[in-house]
Amino acid sequence: MNLADLIAVAAGRAPADLLLTDARVVNTLNGRVESGNIAVAGGLIAGVGDYRDAHQVIDLEGMYLAPGLIDGHIHIESSMLHPVEYARAVVPRGVLGVVTDLHEVANVGGLEGMRLMIKWCQGLPCDFFFMLPSCVPASHLETSGATLTSAELRKARRWKNVVGLGEVMNYPGVVNSDRGVLDKVGLFRDDVVDGHAPGLRGESLNAYMAAGPRSDHESTKLDEAKEKLSKGMYVMIREGSSEKNLAELLPLVDDGTYKRCFFVVDDRSCVDLLKDGDVDAVVRHAINWGLDPVRAIQMATLNTAEYFRLHRLGAVAPGYAANLIAISDLDSMKVDMVFYQGRLVARRGEMVVDLPKLRTKGLDSTIRIKPFSEDTMALRTGKPEFPVIELVPGQIVTRKKTEKVHIRDGVVLPDIERDLLKLVVVERHRATGNIGVALVKGFGLKRGALASSVAHDSHNVIAVGCRDEDILTAVNEVQRLRGGLVVCEGGAVIASMPLPIAGLLSDKRLQAAVEEFRKVEQAAAGLGTRLPAPFATLSFLALAVVPELKLTDLGLVDVVQFRLLGPEDLE
Amino acid sequence: MNLADLIAVAAGRAPADLLLTDARVVNTLNGRVESGNIAVAGGLIAGVGDYRDAHQVIDLEGMYLAPGLIDGHIHIESSMLHPVEYARAVVPRGVLGVVTDLHEVANVGGLEGMRLMIKWCQGLPCDFFFMLPSCVPASHLETSGATLTSAELRKARRWKNVVGLGEVMNYPGVVNSDRGVLDKVGLFRDDVVDGHAPGLRGESLNAYMAAGPRSDHESTKLDEAKEKLSKGMYVMIREGSSEKNLAELLPLVDDGTYKRCFFVVDDRSCVDLLKDGDVDAVVRHAINWGLDPVRAIQMATLNTAEYFRLHRLGAVAPGYAANLIAISDLDSMKVDMVFYQGRLVARRGEMVVDLPKLRTKGLDSTIRIKPFSEDTMALRTGKPEFPVIELVPGQIVTRKKTEKVHIRDGVVLPDIERDLLKLVVVERHRATGNIGVALVKGFGLKRGALASSVAHDSHNVIAVGCRDEDILTAVNEVQRLRGGLVVCEGGAVIASMPLPIAGLLSDKRLQAAVEEFRKVEQAAAGLGTRLPAPFATLSFLALAVVPELKLTDLGLVDVVQFRLLGPEDLE
Repeated sequence: MNLADLIAVAAGRAPADLLLTDARVVNTLNGRVESGNIAVAGGLIAGVGDYRDAHQVIDLEGMYLAPGLIDGHIHIESSMLHPVEYARAVVPRGVLGVVTDLHEVANVGGLEGMRLMIKWCQGLPCDFFFMLPSCVPASHLETSGATLTSAELRKARRWKNVVGLGEVMNYPGVVNSDRGVLDKVGLFRDDVVDGHAPGLRGESLNAYMAAGPRSDHESTKLDEAKEKLSKGMYVMIREGSSEKNLAELLPLVDDGTYKRCFFVVDDRSCVDLLKDGDVDAVVRHAINWGLDPVRAIQMATLNTAEYFRLHRLGAVAPGYAANLIAISDLDSMKVDMVFYQGRLVARRGEMVVDLPKLRTKGLDSTIRIKPFSEDTMALRTGKPEFPVIELVPGQIVTRKKTEKVHIRDGVVLPDIERDLLKLVVVERHRATGNIGVALVKGFGLKRGALASSVAHDSHNVIAVGCRDEDILTAVNEVQRLRGGLVVCEGGAVIASMPLPIAGLLSDKRLQAAVEEFRKVEQAAAGLGTRLPAPFATLSFLALAVVPELKLTDLGLVDVVQFRLLGPEDLE
Repeated sequence: MNLADLIAVAAGRAPADLLLTDARVVNTLNGRVESGNIAVAGGLIAGVGDYRDAHQVIDLEGMYLAPGLIDGHIHIESSMLHPVEYARAVVPRGVLGVVTDLHEVANVGGLEGMRLMIKWCQGLPCDFFFMLPSCVPASHLETSGATLTSAELRKARRWKNVVGLGEVMNYPGVVNSDRGVLDKVGLFRDDVVDGHAPGLRGESLNAYMAAGPRSDHESTKLDEAKEKLSKGMYVMIREGSSEKNLAELLPLVDDGTYKRCFFVVDDRSCVDLLKDGDVDAVVRHAINWGLDPVRAIQMATLNTAEYFRLHRLGAVAPGYAANLIAISDLDSMKVDMVFYQGRLVARRGEMVVDLPKLRTKGLDSTIRIKPFSEDTMALRTGKPEFPVIELVPGQIVTRKKTEKVHIRDGVVLPDIERDLLKLVVVERHRATGNIGVALVKGFGLKRGALASSVAHDSHNVIAVGCRDEDILTAVNEVQRLRGGLVVCEGGAVIASMPLPIAGLLSDKRLQAAVEEFRKVEQAAAGLGTRLPAPFATLSFLALAVVPELKLTDLGLVDVVQFRLLGPEDLE
């Protein structure tokens, strides 16, 4: 856009590209609702005023007009959707800005994988911004697909739409001045650095913040959030598929603090995106729970833009991007029309423009498993007791238990009655043949097996089952599909959702992906588990940075001691 | 500062460099006053908490501790002080951040002059930030010392502590898509661009803002400021030596708007700096007039820092600069101790550290006047009437009047009874010999003459007087002093203030400069003028961008028509 042309439209000397008339403008800058016509030119807002002359006029008939919503922290991989389909899910809901940390793809595909994903996000009717993953791999106790070095981060820092360093999860490393993590954080000294510091308080929080992070999305208690805000963190109030902090944290928001709070979802499944929404759902819930709608919109637009230094987003004002949403009912956040860069892209919940084809090349063949047999899954011991990973309902932490187990010929057997199932993690990046095997309690399968190539953070293939044969079949099917979620029973595949992109994302359209996901979850439930989200639960059992006991391709990890259990612990 | 060392102090593993105990911390982040000890290391704040261990401990005995104040818009040249002495005036008052636009020095010394000034600002116990002058020269109707081109701005944009483009005064040029000014503004598309748009409203304001400026310090009416804020401008509430907008604009500040308002002084004389203060005075006045002291401090610290994207200033929190002020009484903003980068630099109104010597080299010989005689000042006409510049009390605008004049031998004579005095502007940058001569009404001198090398914006030498002899003597003395303010009577110099740095700044210490300035003002008053600030008034009579009639070295300028008056108008 030529600046002179934009000015000519703003000054009323030239017709606007688009004129939105009879709008009630949600002014995020002063917190008021104002009336006016909005002149748009070259994808930008020329001004709000008494404009009349335009190539196209849309009468908003008194609807509210707000800036496009921005989700300040979302891992789009959690939706298992291709970015194109992610946009299809969220754009009609008014989400026109997404700040994402491609942590999962980076663990599989490294810098090149991220580059591809960033490319696929271009040309969509939604602005994607990227925070560079700070902790790839998550630990040295597993085999990941890639390592992101400081040198690579330095390179990627200059990429278009890269806005900072993603959540610095290794907060103990920061507090203890670990050199590797400080090197990375130091690179982003003048940039936005996202924090991730669950429960961190007092002097440890000071130490973490002195290093640079100025936001946090992990507060689960009001006092914790208050302390973080008082020390200079923007508090990202998170309401995701599993982590729900809105009700607890909403009382944080008052006249003196609201500018330093904004909404994020962190992780949302494709099912939730379709049914409930993205950050629009958080806005809606916040309004339901009593937050002033204008303030709720400020907290999903301007505040987020200010934190991320996106100086042209978040307001309906001259020179800002014409990313606009027309809202027919403010209290229920019912989004009617969605404009991206001044172009109507969605209406009444549906896209009205075509989206590009789904590209997958470069990330469509990442599963490399060395062939293995049921024998390899044998769990040998000389003792009558064995360590067991015990699930904690609704959480991603586990307990480390020791249970008496059935042993036959020196081999530990699953015990379905006592819900002691076999858990297996198969290395899948470079066909090393690494296989970790353990017992898990609390999964509740009565028969069959589940396998998945989504297993945080290294995304090896993880499987749980009652019988080795079903586990083997399921893992082999994941390999055949080049990634996916698989349910087996009686030696046969009974349901599956292919995730051929990095083993993480579907190559299907939104509706089809949601349908497939529902079916595998139903099939899993049919095997007896009562977990509300069995594949999500499974995916966190390899996450060796969350206590207490986890399983990676290298074996059982005592997360509290941060070490692999050895023969001395097991035999 | 090594990041690991800072973290170690924050985490309580290592002693702080400095510990401030028993403080009531003014938390600008949440608007509350909180208690705690402040640990400082490497010039940064490690944290606020229960810290005990330090190399140096200062007990604040319950005093308030706030971030150093920041003046968001000040032309330090208006003080006529060298930057070192400017710091000496403001640092003990708690001003530790200064955003300045070296517009005056740039008009005399161009890019190189700015570079020198910026150098002299280094090493002082105060952060100086620079906005690059956008309009040098101010007009083509005068001879300036320099022109700042787009290419030069592009170069200077990368200099350390340069944070954006200074007030875009040519707002008609922007609104009318003038290519020269848009070229400059376009260079700073992703940076901070200050506005300057007195009275601009409606679609013209939209047009101006679409180009980029996101602040304004020229609002004189509440409604005007409200509109500017609602369209995305940060409103700089100005309270300077002459322009006083605080009382009018304070009602703008409420829970929904205060984050987008901050305090500036724009121009303050050395006398006012010493007597009343810098932005600390604005804070004090705002509190007197009912603003909550914590909010007033937020508006002179964090808000300013946020607008200018100074992410380490404006809060007492981990990782922020340890620029701190201890306040013994909050309501009267009585500043006791001042810490810059963690070091006590001032106490009870006095610096406690040495400041560097005043450097002047490179800007100490800028006055070049071609010798001239009284004859050159003859004002010839064939008509009985002549155009006259009429002062408007308290304002920098003038009226264009036509008066009957005394004429002898075709030469117009001053008329002291009717207060029609001779006004002369002598080009002084390149000894061209250009001299503009006119009549001014309202100055009130009964005898003698005043001359000054401060004459906005080109800073040629301007003089007013009752007799040509005194005018000539005064201009010659300005030349001899290499710049300055001079008062003559009876053909002799009776008072003077040398301003040998660019013809704009004194090379004296703060107190001496103030004393000299008081004396020349008293001497001017002794010649009969009743103007409260005769040299300030004189300095604006050459400003050819403020209506209606002004005088430059090229002659009389009709500012409304934006042209020089020619023989057809005068003879």
